[in-house]
Parts: sequence; C-alpha cells; structure tokens
Amino acid sequence: MSVLVIAAHPDDEVLGCGGTIARLTQEGHDVYIAILGEGITSRYEKREEADQALVKELQGRCRKATELLGAKDLFLYDLPDNRFDTVPLLDVIKIVEELIERLRPQVVYTHHGGDLNIDHVIVHRAVLTATRPMRDQPVQEIYAFEVPSSTEWSFQQFEPGFRPNVFVDISRTINIKAKALSCYDTEVRAFPHPRSPEAICAISRRWGTVVGREAVEAFEMIRSIR
Amino acid sequence: MSVLVIAAHPDDEVLGCGGTIARLTQEGHDVYIAILGEGITSRYEKREEADQALVKELQGRCRKATELLGAKDLFLYDLPDNRFDTVPLLDVIKIVEELIERLRPQVVYTHHGGDLNIDHVIVHRAVLTATRPMRDQPVQEIYAFEVPSSTEWSFQQFEPGFRPNVFVDISRTINIKAKALSCYDTEVRAFPHPRSPEAICAISRRWGTVVGREAVEAFEMIRSIR
Amino acid sequence: MSVLVIAAHPDDEVLGCGGTIARLTQEGHDVYIAILGEGITSRYEKREEADQALVKELQGRCRKATELLGAKDLFLYDLPDNRFDTVPLLDVIKIVEELIERLRPQVVYTHHGGDLNIDHVIVHRAVLTATRPMRDQPVQEIYAFEVPSSTEWSFQQFEPGFRPNVFVDISRTINIKAKALSCYDTEVRAFPHPRSPEAICAISRRWGTVVGREAVEAFEMIRSIR
Amino acid sequence: MSVLVIAAHPDDEVLGCGGTIARLTQEGHDVYIAILGEGITSRYEKREEADQALVKELQGRCRKATELLGAKDLFLYDLPDNRFDTVPLLDVIKIVEELIERLRPQVVYTHHGGDLNIDHVIVHRAVLTATRPMRDQPVQEIYAFEVPSSTEWSFQQFEPGFRPNVFVDISRTINIKAKALSCYDTEVRAFPHPRSPEAICAISRRWGTVVGREAVEAFEMIRSIR
Amino acid sequence: MSVLVIAAHPDDEVLGCGGTIARLTQEGHDVYIAILGEGITSRYEKREEADQALVKELQGRCRKATELLGAKDLFLYDLPDNRFDTVPLLDVIKIVEELIERLRPQVVYTHHGGDLNIDHVIVHRAVLTATRPMRDQPVQEIYAFEVPSSTEWSFQQFEPGFRPNVFVDISRTINIKAKALSCYDTEVRAFPHPRSPEAICAISRRWGTVVGREAVEAFEMIRSIR
Amino acid sequence: MSVLVIAAHPDDEVLGCGGTIARLTQEGHDVYIAILGEGITSRYEKREEADQALVKELQGRCRKATELLGAKDLFLYDLPDNRFDTVPLLDVIKIVEELIERLRPQVVYTHHGGDLNIDHVIVHRAVLTATRPMRDQPVQEIYAFEVPSSTEWSFQQFEPGFRPNVFVDISRTINIKAKALSCYDTEVRAFPHPRSPEAICAISRRWGTVVGREAVEAFEMIRSIR
Repeated sequence: MSVLVIAAHPDDEVLGCGGTIARLTQEGHDVYIAILGEGITSRYEKREEADQALVKELQGRCRKATELLGAKDLFLYDLPDNRFDTVPLLDVIKIVEELIERLRPQVVYTHHGGDLNIDHVIVHRAVLTATRPMRDQPVQEIYAFEVPSSTEWSFQQFEPGFRPNVFVDISRTINIKAKALSCYDTEVRAFPHPRSPEAICAISRRWGTVVGREAVEAFEMIRSIR
Repeated sequence: MSVLVIAAHPDDEVLGCGGTIARLTQEGHDVYIAILGEGITSRYEKREEADQALVKELQGRCRKATELLGAKDLFLYDLPDNRFDTVPLLDVIKIVEELIERLRPQVVYTHHGGDLNIDHVIVHRAVLTATRPMRDQPVQEIYAFEVPSSTEWSFQQFEPGFRPNVFVDISRTINIKAKALSCYDTEVRAFPHPRSPEAICAISRRWGTVVGREAVEAFEMIRSIR
Repeated sequence: MSVLVIAAHPDDEVLGCGGTIARLTQEGHDVYIAILGEGITSRYEKREEADQALVKELQGRCRKATELLGAKDLFLYDLPDNRFDTVPLLDVIKIVEELIERLRPQVVYTHHGGDLNIDHVIVHRAVLTATRPMRDQPVQEIYAFEVPSSTEWSFQQFEPGFRPNVFVDISRTINIKAKALSCYDTEVRAFPHPRSPEAICAISRRWGTVVGREAVEAFEMIRSIR
Repeated sequence: MSVLVIAAHPDDEVLGCGGTIARLTQEGHDVYIAILGEGITSRYEKREEADQALVKELQGRCRKATELLGAKDLFLYDLPDNRFDTVPLLDVIKIVEELIERLRPQVVYTHHGGDLNIDHVIVHRAVLTATRPMRDQPVQEIYAFEVPSSTEWSFQQFEPGFRPNVFVDISRTINIKAKALSCYDTEVRAFPHPRSPEAICAISRRWGTVVGREAVEAFEMIRSIR
Repeated sequence: MSVLVIAAHPDDEVLGCGGTIARLTQEGHDVYIAILGEGITSRYEKREEADQALVKELQGRCRKATELLGAKDLFLYDLPDNRFDTVPLLDVIKIVEELIERLRPQVVYTHHGGDLNIDHVIVHRAVLTATRPMRDQPVQEIYAFEVPSSTEWSFQQFEPGFRPNVFVDISRTINIKAKALSCYDTEVRAFPHPRSPEAICAISRRWGTVVGREAVEAFEMIRSIR
Repeated sequence: MSVLVIAAHPDDEVLGCGGTIARLTQEGHDVYIAILGEGITSRYEKREEADQALVKELQGRCRKATELLGAKDLFLYDLPDNRFDTVPLLDVIKIVEELIERLRPQVVYTHHGGDLNIDHVIVHRAVLTATRPMRDQPVQEIYAFEVPSSTEWSFQQFEPGFRPNVFVDISRTINIKAKALSCYDTEVRAFPHPRSPEAICAISRRWGTVVGREAVEAFEMIRSIR
C-alpha cells in the first residue's frame, strides 16, 4: 500500500501521525511525506528577515525524522509559514495534485480542517479538492489527524469539529514517535505545553483509554471507497 | 472475518446493506443477521390484534432473503413493532450484548441514529452501548446504514445527521440485493416511494456518482480500532 | 415575480436549478441569470495563458442554455476562475449589490455555502451580504442549490451542511434541463461522474423519492420574509 | 388553503403562531387547531389529583382564543400534561395521522423539536412521522414555531437548534395575538417572564429587526414540496 | 457560595468533578451532592434480584467519598439503575426541583447531555428543566461534566457534543480525587479502562495541556447569569 | 481585573458589550478598547477615495463613547474597512499579540466568529490565535459578543452558530449604552433596523426574558481557565 502524509509544517507529520507512520512502515507499506510550508519564518516580523540557515536546519531535522519513521521519501515545499492565506488556494491545490499524480497513493493522511492554524485549514481544503473522487482518482482513503497545540486550541469555534473515528494502536511505535519528535527540539516545549514529550504521552494514553489500548493515535476518516 | 448486521425490522437489513452483505459473503466472510423487532404489528390499532400468520410469513420472507444474501444465520427477536420505546432500553441492550457475546463478531452494521423511525433510533443506541470498547470487546468496527423512507425523512430534524464516509461498490451484487428485496413484496411500494426497486436503483447510482462507481451503498463508520 | 440566479461558473446555473428555472419561466415568471466568473481559465497553469477563444465559446454556450431555459437575460462577469479568493470579498459584494439594485428581484437562487469549490463559497457569502434584509431590500427569498461534483464532494468537512428543505417537482422540465446541460458538452463528463446526464437523472430521481415525485430539484431555503 | 396547527398544550398555539393564524384567517384561509394534551395537570403531584374543573376551564379559554384568532375549528385531546413520554409514541402518531386524514391540510404548523419541554419534543416527532411525504400525503409544508419559555430555555443543549428561516410580518395582527393570549390569564406571567405580554412584544420586535419589519413571528420551515 | 452536584450513580460525582469539589470545599464553599440512582442493580437480569446488601455497601462508599471531598451533605435517591427511562421524566424533574427548593444553590454541576449512558441523559434534561431561569430561580450557573467511559463512548453519535469551555486547575486536589475514587474499588477497572486511576490521571493531564496547567477538569458551562 | 475589548469597527464595541463595559467600569475594573479597523471607508468605491475628515470624525465619536462608558483607554488601528481579508491574517494576529503583551488583560471580549461581516470573522480568529493558552498567557477568559445587523444576518449559514451562555444584567447601565450609541449617529439607523435605539432596547429585553431580568447582554464564553 502506498501512503502519502501531507502536512503544513515540519513536525506536524510527527505530532499528527508519527506512531502510525512508524507502524505502517514496519508493516511493509510505502509511506511518503510532503511538507508544504517552509516553517518558522512567521516568527520574524517580516518573512524576508528570516534566517535562511535556520530554515535549512529545520529541513535537516525533518529529514532525520523521516528516516527514523522509516518513510520512503520526503518532499519539501516552501509556502510562506503561517501565511498560506496569502497564496491563491488554486496554487496550493496544484501542488497537491501534482504530488498525487506522481506518487498515486491509495491513502492520504492530512490536517484536520477545524484547526486554529490557518495553514492547516488551507492544506485540508487543498487536499480534499486535489483528491476529488473521480473515476481515475488513486486516493481511496483520506484521514485527518490532530496536531496538539492547534486542533484543541480551536475551542469549538472553527468547524468542522474533530470527530475521531479511527483509533490506531501505537503501543509498539510510540517510542519511535518520541524519538522522531526529539529531532525537532527547536519546536518542542516544556510540559504542560501540548508539544512536550509528556503531553504527547498523555494524549496517546487518553486516546488509548477510549478504545481499551495502551497508546493510540486518533484520526477522523473523511472517506473510504471500497 | 465475522460480521453481524443488527436491524429493527425485517427488510431493513436488505434496504440498508443488502449489496454489501452479498459482497462480503461472496468474499468469504461470515455474515450473521439479527432482527430485533417482529415487524408489521404496528399496522394494527392494537398489537394483540395483529394477524400472527402474517408475522410468521414475514419471518419466512426474512429467512429467504438471508439465504439469498448468503448470510450464515438469522436471529429473530420479537420486540413490538414501532413500539421499541415501550421496552426499557436496558432490555434491548442486554439482547444485543448476549448476541455479541455469543457470536463475537469483529464488525457490526446497524441503524443510523438520526432516523425518523423510533425503533431504529433505539437499536442504534443499544448497539453502541452493547459494544463499548473495553479491552475484551470483540467488535472493532461499527457502521451505520441508511434505510430509505426513514433516514431521509428526518429532514435534518433528528441528530445526528447521516454523514456517510464509507462507500462500498455493489455494482456486482446489486442484482442480489434487488432479488432479496423482492422477497419482501408486502413491504415494497411503487416508485417514487423510497422502498421501490427503482428508488433503490436511483439511490445506489446517486451514491455511485459521489465516488466514481456505478452502484454504491453508503455508510457512516462510527468507529474503527486498529 | 422576478427571480435572479447568481452562479460562479457557466453550467452551475443549469446543474443547480435548470429544471426550476424552466418551470418558473413556463409559469410566467421573469428569470435573470448572472455568472460571476469567466470559467475554465483555472485549467491553465497561469490565468493569462488561457485561450480567450474558449472563454468566449463558453459564454456562447451559456447564452444558448439561458435561451433554452427561457430566462430573460444573462449577465456575464469575469472574476478569475477558481481564484475568487484572490479578489477582495467586498468587490464581489459590490457586483452583486449593483445587480440587485438594477433588477430588484424578489427571489434569489445561489450557491450553497459548504461546497468544496472556493468560488461557490465566496459567491454564497457575497450574496448573503448583498441581500441584507434592510427595509428597502427587494429580495424576500433566498435559496441555495447544490452543484453535483462540488456540494457532495465536501464530505461533511465544510460547514454549513446542505440541508435541503424545498423540493421542486421538475418532472415536466427535466428534459429542458438535460438539453440546456448538453449546451455545455465541454463541461459534461461520462457517468458515473456527477456532471453526466445519467448522474443528473439519478440525482433528480433520488430527490424525487424523498418527497413522492418522479423528478425533483432540492434547495435549502435560507430565508423568506412574508 | 387549509392549515392545521398542532400543539401540545393550550396557549402554545397562541404563543407559537397566534399572529400568523390571525393573518391567515384574515386572508381567507381555513385554519384548524389541535391541542394534544390536557394542560396543567402536571402542576399536581399526581395527575389524578388535578382539579377537573380547571382542566375544563382551560379548554374554555382555548376555545375563546380559537375564536378570536378566527380559526375554523378546535380539536382537543387529553394526553397527560408534561407526561407525553409515558404514552407510546405510536399512539401519538396515530392521533395525528387520523387528524391529517380527516382534515387533509396542505400546511402544518407545530412545535420545534429542540424545546426543553418533553411534550413539545414528542409532538414534533409524531408530526414528522405522521406526515411522511408519500405520494398521497396532503401536507406539503411543515413549519416549526418557537414557544417562549421552552425553546430558548434549551440553552443549545437539545438538538436540533431553532434555525428560523421564515419570517411572517404580524404588524397588523399582533393585537389579536395579545388579545388571544389574554384568554389564558392563568398561564401568563409577569415580565420579564417569556410568557408575559411585554415579552411577547419584545420577541416580535426583535424578530422584526432581523428582517426590517415592525413585528414578526419566526418559523423554521422543515420542508416544502412544490 | 452554595454548590450542588447532581449525578446519576455513585462514583459519577468523583469521576466528573471530584477535583473541583475538593478545591471548592478547600476554598470554603458549601458543596452538596445528590445521587439520583441506586447504582449497580442493572448488573442483574432483573432489578429485584439485586443484592440489597451491595446497594447499601455502595451507598457507604459514596458517603466516604463525600467526606473525603469535604462536601457538606449527601442526598441518595433510588431511581432504578440504568433504567431511568422507565420513570416518567416529570418525576425525575420533581425530585430535582424539590432539592433545588430546599438547598437553593447558586451553582449546579451535572451530567453532560450527550453521554452514552441513558441515565446521564435523563438527569441532564431533568436538571435543565428544574432550573428554568425564572425570576426566583436560585441557580445562576450550570456546568456539565464528562464521565470517562460514558461521554467519550458516544463517538459523536449523541448530541450535543461535549464542548468544554471551563477548565479548572486541580493540580492541588487531584490526590484527593484519586483517594475518593479508591472508595469505589468495585467500580474501578484496570488501565486502560477509562475508570482506572491511570486513566483519570492521563485525562487530567491531557486537559491540563489544553490550557497550560498540570492537571485540569474540563466542564461545559451551560449558562451563567450575572 | 483588567479587561480588553477587541472590535473591528467603531460602534461594534458599544453594540456588542456597551452595557457590560459600563457595568464593569462602575464596579471598578479597568477596561481597554481596541478598534482594529478604520471604519466607513468601504462605503466608497475605492478606499483611497474615502473622506479622511470623516474617518477622523468617526475616531472622535469613538473616543467620546469610550469616555462615556468609563473605559481607561482606546487603541485605534487602521485596517481597511470591510477589507480585512486583503491583509494577511498573521499581520492581524501580530497586532493583537502586541496589544495583549502590552496590556496583559485577564479577560477579552471580541467578535463572534459566525458573523456575516468578514472583518468580524477575521478579528475572531486573530484573537483566538493571539490568546493561545500557553503557560504565560495572561488572558484567562474570552467572550464573544453579538453585533446586531451582522450576527443575526448570517441566517445560520456561517459556523459557528452564536450560542450565548453568559447573560449579563445591564438594567442599570442600558442608559449609558444608549448614550454611547448616540455618539455614533452616522452609524445609527431608524427602527426596525437592528442598529436603531429601539432595536437595541428590544434585543436587551428579549435576552432579559431568557433569564428573568429586565435588560441583558448575551455572550458566548469561549473559554475560562480557573
């Protein structure tokens, strides 16, 4: 099975579905990761002021995480960080369409559409548009993941709500997820921030209790064609 | 794989997922069908006045449909037709729990919870309660089906809305579904009634167009544990 | 009665409410059609590369469809296809306000706001803003139509959901709708694509079964002042 | 046009749509009113302890209100006040079905389904079931009204939300509504209670401001077949 | 401040808001607890077969938990366990009304209305009805709590969704909550069951990360009058 | 307590929470007001054509209203009126972040996110992003207010719905609200427009009847950390 993970920023892919990626690759599936945005430049007053060395370094971290998770390949794009709304939606859609056409994955994991972060919202819509289920569409299944510090910080104000219906047991790969996350030490924060190792652990345990497992990542299956 | 279909009335199982049952049995899975209500007695002023011969006959039709679909076994209960609200919910739950315990299916198909028909609503809640995902719960996946003439006749007034996310190609089994439905000629109506053969065809074609296939049954996956 | 149909792209007006337009004009009402976008240019990498002859041709098709439906007049605008998000919303609103002021229709039909297509979403919001029910507002009723291949392809991810509450019998005008649609043979696809003649037929029959008629177009009435 | 108002308790018909009834009868339509419950007996510890003289008196008030509104006829039933949940839903449905069969109205006004009051909820479901749009169904339009002191006291906890989309100008009949309400002086409370004359006035003015009129009753059109 | 906690079963009060109760009592507020149902009898085939000694024992556990939390008083009722739907809703409302009248609390904590458990659903509706905000209503604020193993097991199928908007820091009282929970060792299960000590810990930490605290209980404020 | 009101246009702060601001300042709290947009320039065909004297005058009116309400300070920004969608969201967020950092308020009042007006929608999202509840976030409570002529004119088409759960008694300050509103006589319209004095009165009385008070402003509490 060929699986494509489409995320907005380096580290979203680990936060959202790192344990599941590791499990899929262990089970022999081909997983590809695409990151549409350059990351971190929004921390500067103006995008042009961003330290390009740091952008490069972040890409290196991302590559290392990809390797740890066992993914086949990583595709890095340079949409402006936290400024996806300044790009015509059609341009984002065309990036995703081209990717889908090239890789022809059966399964896609991407952002939830009700996140607080505007880049996540735009990626979600672009992915749904690029995977319209016409006859020759390779993508049969689409899953939305949560990103701690963005999904829960919507406080029910941005539709759709996150309605997880697929629960993946990651008891055996949560360690790999933790390791992959530690590649991003510039993005990680101290507990109780949702992007801390302890928070990631509490979240996976909480989801675990929902379905009788030790550690779980939760997804909303948007559609499956069988 | 062991699959259990839990419906309120004879014919709901065919209307809701007849094509999918036929496909599952053709693919070698074990499908069991449980009908919790006796059917038709609500057409009489009082339940006691119902013609028991007709109730028996309806059960015979149900058995024949079961056979046509290739299901392994049929379990008939006698909850009062369109009067499930006169039975304590706990009693309905216990029926389902006992069934689950006996058959230990991995997958359950049942009614959507926002239907107009009160029996459907109650079966939905009973099934969700009886399949609480504790550690030893055999049921890993639950799907809700629509029943034409009940799901769409809620007109968005009864939550939850029907949000189909799983689309099963029944192009090769729609004929079997049609045949199984014809067992119930007392329940079938003339087009444009939703329980007419032409309606069933239009519905499966409409769902087909949603995902690029000729004929489809649509389901809402309520949860999947993997 | 004066009716204005406001759509994003040539063919949306037929797909969304062609049968209803034909019925209204047959019953003696004045129907006007406005298409805010130029259509098709999004199929090119850059808008400027689009073949202007094809844009013109599409406008011709639209005029022919308008005639077939019996509408009084057609108003063509040139917002950039699938790039309405690059235009300030206020500019779209002002176009609609000017139209409303000129035609002073009592009834408006327009896009549903939860469509996958971003242009539809923007037209919806612009129409609602331009028809704010102040004392001198001519528009008393607003209806949202679905556009097959956009409304259903949201898969419940973009609010609001399509909640049809008005069902118009088009049994006698579905042939005209089919003919009008055939004007757009560049936009039409093969079944099971939702923009195929067979799909349009299946959809109208499916809606028909919902309310006991042979063929129906479904709308969500957004508001009516009486 | 023949219109049937179906309410749970005496005074709900006035609170919910008294101004609209008066306007409809003034415009020459036939309006019938049905009250399914006996009213007030829930104020006693046990239903049997209720003062039957007061029940009778309340029915007299209801008749007087009916007359003031210009309705053609009043149908009084005796479901137990605030205890409709102790009656099988099917029995309530059969009452409504029999009424619909007898009067064959084109239009029905009834309770909103998300009210706090359980009797309102049950009437709503019974009416939707009894008016299933099969081919020979006389009812083409169904409207839900709000009842001050029940609809707003759900505080968004009971679905569906009240989503008014039809706004009826009652500027010329609000006086009749006020008079009809005063028939029920045992049910009326002092401002700021929602069932006070001042509250009724504030509510109709608030709805008026929503659509640019002086006084309005708001409804949710559940479905219209045309 | 006088606070009343209204729950369906012994242990719901601890699971739902044990940490908050402990904090409120430490801060000098008067907290009262009411348990409307007898608990555990649903585990027997018939309610009459239940071992009354165990029911009594459970009440003893509840009293001990109440003491540990520092609550002022405990009110135990005997509605039939998991069979609240066999009691007329009005009777449940009258119990709550009488309690409110006697204690005149300003704040009420109770069940969320979208839980899987039917008793929780009924308590929720009864509390909202009994606290209708008429002029002389003492209750100014109502909060809904989640009960692990019931709220999350609705899987978005029962409205309303749980939309927490109030987050109470229980870092200093989570130990008391744990102790109070251990009174109910017959109700507690092994991790990863949601009613295990480890689950309670993971849940409070997960909510903590949502708002930057170590341990939190989450509530939905239904209404506040100020 | 330090409170910050963040609104899009001059007069929104009064329409949305003028009575509450007056009550808070009377009770000794520090209230600050920030207006992110310049106001009125959208009434011109092009923004550059706007009469700058009128913009200045409007700012003067705003200052006078601020004074009347007893607020401590007013912060005026110049985002383009009704064209906030032409500004990168990140820039709006940074304005709010800087304000929060400077004033460090515990409480924020801002626009509801489902308003018809696009500027309101954008302010809402910017505020939620700028107040992400990390450990050092000063803002503990966020409230959304309605703006008559924008919130109700969404007609349930733009999520989220306005779900008020906090009702503030403004019986004693409604006169101050009226006076503050009269500063904006260029923005005020004749009844039944929602921005007329009579409408403001009807609205506050309607909300009052919801909770047993004479005059009330309604808010949706988005989150509270305690």
